[in-house]
Amino acid sequence: MEKTARFLGLSVSRLERLLEKRFLSRNWGNYTNFFRFETSVSGIERGSVLLQKSDGKLDFILGFPKIQRAMLLGPSINNHFSEIDKLIVEEKMNGYNVRVIENAGKLIAFTRSGHICPYSTEKVNYLLNTSFFRQYPDLVVHGEMAGPENPYVSKKVYDTQTLDFFVFDIRHKKTGQPLQVRQRRELAASFGFKQVPFLGEFARKEAAEKIMQIIKKLGEMGHEGVVIKDLDMDLAPIKYTCSQSNCADLEHAFKFYNEVGRDYLYSRVVREGFQTVEWDEDEETMDQRCLRLGRSIISPMADSVRRVGKGEKLYDEVTLRFQNPQTLQEFEEYFRRLGIDAIFDQVGYSGGELMVKLQKLNQSTTDKTESMWEGNLW
Amino acid sequence: MEKTARFLGLSVSRLERLLEKRFLSRNWGNYTNFFRFETSVSGIERGSVLLQKSDGKLDFILGFPKIQRAMLLGPSINNHFSEIDKLIVEEKMNGYNVRVIENAGKLIAFTRSGHICPYSTEKVNYLLNTSFFRQYPDLVVHGEMAGPENPYVSKKVYDTQTLDFFVFDIRHKKTGQPLQVRQRRELAASFGFKQVPFLGEFARKEAAEKIMQIIKKLGEMGHEGVVIKDLDMDLAPIKYTCSQSNCADLEHAFKFYNEVGRDYLYSRVVREGFQTVEWDEDEETMDQRCLRLGRSIISPMADSVRRVGKGEKLYDEVTLRFQNPQTLQEFEEYFRRLGIDAIFDQVGYSGGELMVKLQKLNQSTTDKTESMWEGNLW
Repeated sequence: MEKTARFLGLSVSRLERLLEKRFLSRNWGNYTNFFRFETSVSGIERGSVLLQKSDGKLDFILGFPKIQRAMLLGPSINNHFSEIDKLIVEEKMNGYNVRVIENAGKLIAFTRSGHICPYSTEKVNYLLNTSFFRQYPDLVVHGEMAGPENPYVSKKVYDTQTLDFFVFDIRHKKTGQPLQVRQRRELAASFGFKQVPFLGEFARKEAAEKIMQIIKKLGEMGHEGVVIKDLDMDLAPIKYTCSQSNCADLEHAFKFYNEVGRDYLYSRVVREGFQTVEWDEDEETMDQRCLRLGRSIISPMADSVRRVGKGEKLYDEVTLRFQNPQTLQEFEEYFRRLGIDAIFDQVGYSGGELMVKLQKLNQSTTDKTESMWEGNLW
Repeated sequence: MEKTARFLGLSVSRLERLLEKRFLSRNWGNYTNFFRFETSVSGIERGSVLLQKSDGKLDFILGFPKIQRAMLLGPSINNHFSEIDKLIVEEKMNGYNVRVIENAGKLIAFTRSGHICPYSTEKVNYLLNTSFFRQYPDLVVHGEMAGPENPYVSKKVYDTQTLDFFVFDIRHKKTGQPLQVRQRRELAASFGFKQVPFLGEFARKEAAEKIMQIIKKLGEMGHEGVVIKDLDMDLAPIKYTCSQSNCADLEHAFKFYNEVGRDYLYSRVVREGFQTVEWDEDEETMDQRCLRLGRSIISPMADSVRRVGKGEKLYDEVTLRFQNPQTLQEFEEYFRRLGIDAIFDQVGYSGGELMVKLQKLNQSTTDKTESMWEGNLW
């Protein structure tokens, strides 16, 4: 305890209090030597992970910092990056964010919240060249796991039929200090890692215009958006997304309209208002935007109301594949612990892998809709 | 204190606690003999008013009960009114809800929250036939104050150039027991009160279909919707609104997008999803609905972003008229106490009345938008 407190730069009593209040929680199962910060405390980001290695030494993986969003691209770039001349633009892929390290000879994948996801962990062990982690034990590889066989955000728009890992950051464990963009891309390439697409290097003054063109193309392809970075990574990156992606988020969310976070809806509609102004859209283009936004909300919801009216239950379905049946068991337990209501259905084998249909049930929207059909009032 | 507690059916210590915690608050200014319930306690609705009359007797005006909303008209009518055959439909007007009583020879208008609104109070004193209140001291007149000269919800769609009072309920003071619909309408008519439009009496089985037709017409006229009532008022009424009115609400709200309640947005979009399903809309009609919804959000917001970009400040402006300059002073003080940031500008006289331009400032949206134009991140 004393050693841990010193390692984290906290007093022993503070550390005890964090554990007691469960701001710092111990993992379960095979990973009881891992602790995650459930909330941000004393400058330690939420999702940071503390672990006691088999040799007794402590290790610490800083949480991934939230990337702030530009609402008006031109003003944001000029203000945020006012001191630098050249910007890098990389694609922001739409999947889920994991951090990878090696522990006891095996790679481990942490989700944003600092949980160890068994599915992601199995994947990274064969998707990534593990020698990287032996060579650079102090580095954490940050990547987006994206593709259709995705238990969290299933997208078919990327160059994978299953699920792949795309590096977007490599950072030092304890400090969170990132590698510079070119150094990171070269290092990742030299180990054969897939990476998020590099979309260009632009002078600051031309960046907003260039990014607008990129965003329009990405939007048409159903991709999410971009992250704009300082080459040296001294300044924090900022993100900017496509209208089509905002709307796709809403379209997915409103299928389960009763579970949509109010802020989730609000933040997405507000982005539309800023984008139409900055892009100086004519009436027709703006009407297309309005129609797209309206459809993304009403259409999935209407579909769900109709389905429940016909007696169906609402759920999200994806196919997952597991190399090891043990991973499936751990993943089911993982969902159970996180309180996600799901059915796992083993549907066969493909290429030696166990194929599983995952149905995530959305009982709350099903129940609410049934109640409306029964004539209860809102 | 003891008398008051007995009158309300509370213990003295409970009453003392309510006052201490300011769940029950004393009014200011001319009306320190009025107390309002700031929150619902012990079955007493929020907005209920307790008052000590000049003769020392106590009086109590129950808060107006929230009317529940039908999401699916047919199922809701059949379920909620399953025991009765005939339903009354009255128009739900879009203004603000006041309760009127007489005190010390003068009418007093309470807002929904139980505040005494000086503007509304002045109005009801010449809009309503005061002899009603002398004849029925136990009754409270509930009405919608609607029209363009409205400090809260300005609408030009009703048959008034200024502001008028439309009765929709008459209830007994302490119990809140309503008069039956026909009795209430006859009584109101006999004193020359304006009333919310009576839209029909329908058999339960045909009501949903008839109301759908009414709602479509009201929607085209920019009116809000209907309240469906049991003739005897034994069952609580339910409300149902037009898509155009939902969208008009959003259009007004999104002018000040940074102040839009997240629930305000969410609840309105959800109504659209249910309505399109119940009305079994074809693709074209549904697209009109989607476009209307999208426009109602994006268009006012874009306009505000543009205005602030040009250096303007955002505000809402209405014209009000006052018979007595003293009322204007009281109304300014009232807004100040409620924390509403407003500018009152006396612009002249018309028909002996003082004309005042009221600008309600929305500093939060102005500031947020300026900040975005300056390139700050969201």
